[in-house]
Amino acid sequence: MIVILSGGTGGAKLIEGLAAEVGAAELTIICNTGDDCVFHGLNVSPDIDTILYTLAGLSDSAKGWGIKGDTFAVLDQLRCLGNEAWFNLGDKDFATHITRTRLLREGCQLSEVTDRTRRSLGVQAKILPMSDAPVETRVTTLQGEISFQEFFVRERWSPHVTAVRFAGIEQSRPAPGVLDAIRAASAIIICPSNPISSIGPILAVPGIRHALNQATVPVVAVSPLIGAAAISGPAHKLMTAQGLEASAFGVAQSYREFVKTLVIAHEDQCLTERIQNLGIGVNTTEIRMPSLADKRRLACEVLALAQK
Amino acid sequence: MIVILSGGTGGAKLIEGLAAEVGAAELTIICNTGDDCVFHGLNVSPDIDTILYTLAGLSDSAKGWGIKGDTFAVLDQLRCLGNEAWFNLGDKDFATHITRTRLLREGCQLSEVTDRTRRSLGVQAKILPMSDAPVETRVTTLQGEISFQEFFVRERWSPHVTAVRFAGIEQSRPAPGVLDAIRAASAIIICPSNPISSIGPILAVPGIRHALNQATVPVVAVSPLIGAAAISGPAHKLMTAQGLEASAFGVAQSYREFVKTLVIAHEDQCLTERIQNLGIGVNTTEIRMPSLADKRRLACEVLALAQK
Repeated sequence: MIVILSGGTGGAKLIEGLAAEVGAAELTIICNTGDDCVFHGLNVSPDIDTILYTLAGLSDSAKGWGIKGDTFAVLDQLRCLGNEAWFNLGDKDFATHITRTRLLREGCQLSEVTDRTRRSLGVQAKILPMSDAPVETRVTTLQGEISFQEFFVRERWSPHVTAVRFAGIEQSRPAPGVLDAIRAASAIIICPSNPISSIGPILAVPGIRHALNQATVPVVAVSPLIGAAAISGPAHKLMTAQGLEASAFGVAQSYREFVKTLVIAHEDQCLTERIQNLGIGVNTTEIRMPSLADKRRLACEVLALAQK
Repeated sequence: MIVILSGGTGGAKLIEGLAAEVGAAELTIICNTGDDCVFHGLNVSPDIDTILYTLAGLSDSAKGWGIKGDTFAVLDQLRCLGNEAWFNLGDKDFATHITRTRLLREGCQLSEVTDRTRRSLGVQAKILPMSDAPVETRVTTLQGEISFQEFFVRERWSPHVTAVRFAGIEQSRPAPGVLDAIRAASAIIICPSNPISSIGPILAVPGIRHALNQATVPVVAVSPLIGAAAISGPAHKLMTAQGLEASAFGVAQSYREFVKTLVIAHEDQCLTERIQNLGIGVNTTEIRMPSLADKRRLACEVLALAQK
């Protein structure tokens, strides 16, 4: 069993490739929930849903979020009724959030809800939230502290960021199955996700970083940055705010305690020696994944490193 | 100000006619909420919504419920996720229920939510729920007790009914504005709605029947039955279960304490004397309202009686 730590968009690309190569049933995916938000009174888990929809063959890969061909009648009408509606939610997507919210209110844990949803959608991979407890990534800007979705979507990650914190993280515990999966893994893969806001919250759940540090199986990470910028999103901005170098070297620093090999872009070959000096092996390749063929090729390379 | 007591479909037809004749701003509509239900964790108020959509020009008059041209992507996806989905809810309609549920959870009363929604939709009539407290119409069938929507929609009102009750009615109070509206009314109109499950719950809210009994202004009701059957829906079935004659005479009996004039179908002219013997004036006319012209004509006739 391969254990994967992932955020949304970038992680979903590699996961699509991995599922195509080894079969989704071989994968256990531990998902970031620090981006979870309540919109219109409904519980939205953007990263879990991106992974769910990707593995269900429903995802809109052009947009990187939501369901392919989804319509927006609910959101349009919510706007007519005077609601703020800057976070795009499609009609089919609403069905996921309505079901999740109902089950949570009925007393189910997020991990149970996620498992029911993935079964309903015919997804064979196990998908685990990092925690059943609410954790909220908060971003400090010059205008004050806002939620990650407010920063990322509403403000299009334009504000200057001075700090990032995970509210509720101290009280959180790994969701059922998370630590067992890490202990039983044949390999562990860290997706090319934002190391601060996607992988960061997972690592900050008490117990998870320690379990990774104890792992004796191969742990392979893929950098989400090329040069000083993320392939998509604000990773470099948040890394700088947290005092990390905005580069694959900064990614290596974040994961140095447990990562054995870091896959970085050809363009970053110059960083190889600095990363190796941290005790981490380096593999350079093309890390962009615009097509399914690219996703499968990168997945193959990662799997080869994970089987060493 | 004209005060109207109404359920959904049948009431909405007369209300559309009345709004066209005197202007919606002249109307205060007291709506049945005994049919309210929670579907998918969302608070649905079918009668309020039918009236809202009708006055907002959004209603699907062919179907008698929902929003014209609405789509069903959310409901289809809810089915894919394994949810029971026998109650039809369109996508735009979902926006109403999502907003209502959020506001109720934030502590708003149903009357405030309803007022905000009608303003958002540009509706000039005042729409008041009969009560802010939850009241649930329960129908006893040979298979046990079920909710009104289970009986009406899921079972297509086919089961034999032995009793109807309004759970929570003793603890309910008229919503803010209801009693004041009845006291300040220049006329009161009882719509051609089900006297048991639409008008019945309104009359059963402690204080409302008494306020109607005290009214000195004209009170005009329109029968929802022709012969021994309702123009649409199960009124006759529920009237029989409650020991009433299933006819315009049974309607007259239900309202005898406060109704001055009952408008009945031409076909029921034979009941005139029996109804008059209850002390109620009778007006016979065409009570079907398939077109807007019919709605306006019947509204005109009712208004003439209400101005006497």
